[in-house]
Amino acid sequence: MEERLQKQLEFALEIDKEKNVFRQTGLSGGGRKENDAEHAWHMAIMAYLLGEYANEPVDISKVMIMCLIHDIVEIDAGDTYAYDTEGKKTQREREKAAKERIFNILPEDQAKDLMGLFEEFEENETPEARFAHAMDNLQPLILNNSNNGSDWKEHGVSAEQVYKRQMMTRKGSEKLYEITDMIIKEHVRRGNLQ
Amino acid sequence: MEERLQKQLEFALEIDKEKNVFRQTGLSGGGRKENDAEHAWHMAIMAYLLGEYANEPVDISKVMIMCLIHDIVEIDAGDTYAYDTEGKKTQREREKAAKERIFNILPEDQAKDLMGLFEEFEENETPEARFAHAMDNLQPLILNNSNNGSDWKEHGVSAEQVYKRQMMTRKGSEKLYEITDMIIKEHVRRGNLQ
Repeated sequence: MEERLQKQLEFALEIDKEKNVFRQTGLSGGGRKENDAEHAWHMAIMAYLLGEYANEPVDISKVMIMCLIHDIVEIDAGDTYAYDTEGKKTQREREKAAKERIFNILPEDQAKDLMGLFEEFEENETPEARFAHAMDNLQPLILNNSNNGSDWKEHGVSAEQVYKRQMMTRKGSEKLYEITDMIIKEHVRRGNLQ
Repeated sequence: MEERLQKQLEFALEIDKEKNVFRQTGLSGGGRKENDAEHAWHMAIMAYLLGEYANEPVDISKVMIMCLIHDIVEIDAGDTYAYDTEGKKTQREREKAAKERIFNILPEDQAKDLMGLFEEFEENETPEARFAHAMDNLQPLILNNSNNGSDWKEHGVSAEQVYKRQMMTRKGSEKLYEITDMIIKEHVRRGNLQ
């Protein structure tokens, strides 16, 4: 087999491990937590359907691939819960090492391409990255909303913490932030958020 | 909330159920079976990386969204194993009803768009559909290959059955079919395929 194709298939097998990286968000209807692969799949479809609400025009294919690959580094670095302040301190360093190892399994041009998309997402300075971040926040919000805020209750999360994180949604989509705000207010009212 | 956005968010929540539809393919390294959402995520990334091997030029974004949504109907219709001849008899009818119910949660234009992509995938007559089918076959093949053919052994699948299915890969990519053929021959040699 040619070396190029061999590397591509090796990478394809490597990322299978993302299905074993579990997040803190429960599936709708309760039961188990979702994993990174499922989360990325969900975000990419939501991006495709909600692109019309982006603050700026976006290349939706680029947003989709960004959504699909943004958590690959967690194969090595693990999931860092959005409200885990200790974990957040070392997150960037752990993810940097993971990025180098995992994307470099690919042929050079494709490693560069995916690392570029991952970094663009992380830096959050383009319309596509901002909209992908809006999806990264909105997706768990709608699940958590459907479960009466059970993830927030489990971790004793405050409304202030959620608002801080959801500022990322606002940068990507004012319209979707309006909905976000409505949902947060309702959960404060119900006592699900401190 | 506007009716349009409400419908879009209702659909986004509905498809969360795809994470509970389990397939017959085990994750690499053994353990549990994968679900439809993980499978679709994996296929979409593989499509992005392997597009250069398509027999005909393809719009890779279209292939990706096709991969992401092709199993949504299984929320109602369930997964039909590739080598389940009884299940195959009623598959089309079950999936047709599911398609109508689930995609029609969306606003009309988007329901039409996703149904169109789903039908195009099913009919398998465009370069994009053919390449998406190649991914639908190659993705479980690389997992099964990494597990020493355990899924085939579990179900007593024959080489003839695998070749019949993998004809779909050939229509999408002669190059990836070469690899497929190599893998199948190796598993016949090892006695993993009857």
